[in-house]
Amino acid sequence: MIERLCIIGVGLIGGSLARALRAAGFCHEIVGAGRSAEHLQKAVELGVIDRYETDPALAVAGADMVFVAVPLGAMQSVFSAIKGRLAAGAVLTDAGSAKGSVLETVHQVFGEVPGFFVPGHPIAGTEQSGVEASFAGLYKNRRVILTPVESTDAQAAGRVRAMWEAAGAEVVEMDPVHHDAVLAATSHLPHLLAFTLVDSLVRLADQQELFEYAAGGFRDFTRIASSDPVMWRDICLANHDAIELLIEHFISDLESVNQAVQARDGDRLLEIFTNAKRARDGFIEK
Amino acid sequence: MIERLCIIGVGLIGGSLARALRAAGFCHEIVGAGRSAEHLQKAVELGVIDRYETDPALAVAGADMVFVAVPLGAMQSVFSAIKGRLAAGAVLTDAGSAKGSVLETVHQVFGEVPGFFVPGHPIAGTEQSGVEASFAGLYKNRRVILTPVESTDAQAAGRVRAMWEAAGAEVVEMDPVHHDAVLAATSHLPHLLAFTLVDSLVRLADQQELFEYAAGGFRDFTRIASSDPVMWRDICLANHDAIELLIEHFISDLESVNQAVQARDGDRLLEIFTNAKRARDGFIEK
Repeated sequence: MIERLCIIGVGLIGGSLARALRAAGFCHEIVGAGRSAEHLQKAVELGVIDRYETDPALAVAGADMVFVAVPLGAMQSVFSAIKGRLAAGAVLTDAGSAKGSVLETVHQVFGEVPGFFVPGHPIAGTEQSGVEASFAGLYKNRRVILTPVESTDAQAAGRVRAMWEAAGAEVVEMDPVHHDAVLAATSHLPHLLAFTLVDSLVRLADQQELFEYAAGGFRDFTRIASSDPVMWRDICLANHDAIELLIEHFISDLESVNQAVQARDGDRLLEIFTNAKRARDGFIEK
Repeated sequence: MIERLCIIGVGLIGGSLARALRAAGFCHEIVGAGRSAEHLQKAVELGVIDRYETDPALAVAGADMVFVAVPLGAMQSVFSAIKGRLAAGAVLTDAGSAKGSVLETVHQVFGEVPGFFVPGHPIAGTEQSGVEASFAGLYKNRRVILTPVESTDAQAAGRVRAMWEAAGAEVVEMDPVHHDAVLAATSHLPHLLAFTLVDSLVRLADQQELFEYAAGGFRDFTRIASSDPVMWRDICLANHDAIELLIEHFISDLESVNQAVQARDGDRLLEIFTNAKRARDGFIEK
């Protein structure tokens, strides 16, 4: 149980956790924090949070659990603001999509990675953003990856795990570097490809006409290009090492596909497509 | 109205047209043709076609409308088989995803593009294939592009248009070269990217683990990588000119994105992502 949960960043991710924990009866009070009072007021009206503060330092007062769900680029200023203001025994966790950079930021701000900080990342989301898009079922049967380091307090990690499980998620632990490599492949690269494709096509051609003849495949393929640009800029900057490696790998593979197209090498194309279909169908069955 | 519709290739595309026209009461009899008697028997059992022939030359006998919905690579043998076997006054149309290659094939087989041939392409489909995946609503409110050429008989084109409208589609006409460029951008390139990404990731890493941590974004982004490999090999070979151009354009744009990641150029990344999101959101609103 959480007595007072403080959520810094009440958007899709933060708002959905609030809704899920409230539905589960897992916390008594939820305090929101963020930059926009108007936005936070909306969250109160939607019943997502009980009250709010626009100053994170005030919001964390007396909270036994603090959840930071802001874009990666805003983490440093949030951590700086709440440093020294957390209640005794409070646990701090986050939802950042790249764990190496969050750990680095925490270390910079606190001078160490404090035992009460439990790095986390819920593998859930939609292309929507904002508290209006939040819903209690977002984490149901989804994975949450925790990436504790040596200094992480085991009891703190246990409390974060219990919180996510109460929200319906399955919690796993992973090394932060490995997390960043896996997410670069399954999430960051696909988002970059979708953004780049849509931008590329818009600049190439008559956008109006292009989209007029786009079918369902294009709609699904580009869904993630409707994601929040600021969040994704921050992820690219934060996880640039792993992402660069993957983009280069992908470009090299795409060049090889293009060579097969140019050489009219149907066997090679069929091999690639069949391999991809087999893997993707297998993934979907599970 | 169609008296006897012959569908060569009773899969998702051919089967769905049959179901739609039957539901609309637009044709009296539907004869299927294909290579597999077992598959065609299944189509009869599903009520999609009334009867079948495995020899296209026999299937087209007495049909006033013939619809060819086989992969592009199988078009030549189908056209060769039915040449000289069509009933007087019969109209021939197809569903090929690349019109330049179909027109070339027709010209090769018939020595000209006959007036009775109306090149067509329904902009509809799912990642499923086979007659089991067909459904009457597939073409409802979807576009069908006809790409008639100078020799195309206007009355024949009118009959094909009426057929697709009866199936619920909106019919437009387009120059075949322009069609191939538009479809390369909105369909062929995205499919290639999805196939290449999944193949690339599978060869890169522990596929089991990767897919375990993939979320909804990845599932949607890679949906089209579950498409039929043979159909897509044929499309890549048939529309290779337009596709090569686009892959090169895309690689160059992706390299520029990678440079922005390497240079930690957040402004440039934000610009690209914002531009893409704006275009994609605009497309979805319509």
